[in-house]
Amino acid sequence: MTFSEKLLHYKNITEAGLERYTRFVPKKQEKLFEAMKYSLLAGGKRIRPVLTFEFARLCGGREESALPAACAVEMIHTFSLIHDDLPCMDNDDMRRGRKSCHRQFDEATALLAGDALEIYPFEILYDSVGYGVSAENTLKMVKLLAEYAGHMGMIGGQQVDTQFEGIPLGEKELTETYRLKTSRLLQAAACMGCLSAGAGEDKLKIAFEYGDKLGIAFQITDDILDVCGDTKEIGKPVGSDKENNKETFVSLFGIEGAKERAKRLTRQALDLLDGFADGGFLKELTVELLNRKK
Amino acid sequence: MTFSEKLLHYKNITEAGLERYTRFVPKKQEKLFEAMKYSLLAGGKRIRPVLTFEFARLCGGREESALPAACAVEMIHTFSLIHDDLPCMDNDDMRRGRKSCHRQFDEATALLAGDALEIYPFEILYDSVGYGVSAENTLKMVKLLAEYAGHMGMIGGQQVDTQFEGIPLGEKELTETYRLKTSRLLQAAACMGCLSAGAGEDKLKIAFEYGDKLGIAFQITDDILDVCGDTKEIGKPVGSDKENNKETFVSLFGIEGAKERAKRLTRQALDLLDGFADGGFLKELTVELLNRKK
Repeated sequence: MTFSEKLLHYKNITEAGLERYTRFVPKKQEKLFEAMKYSLLAGGKRIRPVLTFEFARLCGGREESALPAACAVEMIHTFSLIHDDLPCMDNDDMRRGRKSCHRQFDEATALLAGDALEIYPFEILYDSVGYGVSAENTLKMVKLLAEYAGHMGMIGGQQVDTQFEGIPLGEKELTETYRLKTSRLLQAAACMGCLSAGAGEDKLKIAFEYGDKLGIAFQITDDILDVCGDTKEIGKPVGSDKENNKETFVSLFGIEGAKERAKRLTRQALDLLDGFADGGFLKELTVELLNRKK
Repeated sequence: MTFSEKLLHYKNITEAGLERYTRFVPKKQEKLFEAMKYSLLAGGKRIRPVLTFEFARLCGGREESALPAACAVEMIHTFSLIHDDLPCMDNDDMRRGRKSCHRQFDEATALLAGDALEIYPFEILYDSVGYGVSAENTLKMVKLLAEYAGHMGMIGGQQVDTQFEGIPLGEKELTETYRLKTSRLLQAAACMGCLSAGAGEDKLKIAFEYGDKLGIAFQITDDILDVCGDTKEIGKPVGSDKENNKETFVSLFGIEGAKERAKRLTRQALDLLDGFADGGFLKELTVELLNRKK
């Protein structure tokens, strides 16, 4: 398979999995399900599931054993987008080229759809056992996902991001915020892939470090795209950081300075992948994420 | 220990546990932690943890083995209260005699504090293993809590409750809504207690059925208190159901009819407890919840 074929393959099995996990609709909860599906099946890069699948493969695991974790982490990501778009947060009307969840439905439904997508992953992870993952490793995935997504991880990052909007933090603190907001969930995705394959501490350590670098680089690239990107391609208006008086790597170092830092982190992420014999696909993905236009 | 002493004991160890689980505060997430603690340590009946501890004891388990599950279920309950009070949901200014979370802080912080308290439980449940619960049973607790709190349980019930406000449902549908909204989390509390003690299917079945009856009776009693209760004792204004044109057991059957139904369910719950040799405490609790003034 070429790089693009493999990427598409991972995307397809993720979407088939998400579809299956939201197929059964009890009559009364129909609207909640619709809202969950609306946001969950709205496309997107599916980077987190791709990381889960690929790290599982690199650790000698099977695709199906990684599927519950891949779907779980994508649900957590989707929940965070839904809540992040709410009026009391970023108040975004658009997401992925169409109306955000609370715009398509209503605020209460979006709130609850986010809540539902935040907790469903922990029901789903249980399925890993049926695919041959040990109860111990499945439980480690549960703990890891909860910790990296929670107040010490992604949600903590959202709060810092919200609370300190407009307040200059400087490079070190901004990096720490990006680490919480973005790296942590990528780390969860990568580490769960390793765990689903029964990998040891050495592989987990690489996945952890890799996710850290990738996340910060990813967020800096977002900063750059908010200035240089195209509204149509991105699917939401650009320029919002400046409008919201947000400190970013671009406001701190200019476009070239931000690009330089994203490149450096990407290089570090690529070096870490040398720890795997067959890291070609992930290396290509890492570079592609740096050069993305949306 | 008398009934009251035991109830206080369970309340105290729950609060000590919750305190310990929210003690460490990283500087930047201080506000988020404050909001989490504000709602988590605001008192309340702590019925769910009490059920977890007592079912664990009835199944021959140890208190400390049930502690993570007891704290976990109380966090889920608290998350649901915080989000339920938000302007886009019930828009309640008061909770447990003081300002609701978004009134004390702000909407974004309340949203994120709820999000954090929804996911932290899955990190905490991992601790059960350290107290001698098997990985298999801990994983079963994870799945059970996620399922009963999620779109097929409590969150699903919230959505049905919100969506069908003002639309007459009739007794059967209203009972089903109460089952989702209230019974499911009580069932999770009771069943996790059994699982922490390594109990078999027979005990789990009793806990499940008991939680079902208790939850519906509890919700009907809430309906009655909203008409007959005292604002000061309850800590939030009464009469809101009528004001919001909400269908309740009181609107369907009058106060006496609602009381009769709550009593019948309580009797059924009490009968189920005959399945345990030493169910005295739980029986007293069950009757007390029926006769509560708040």
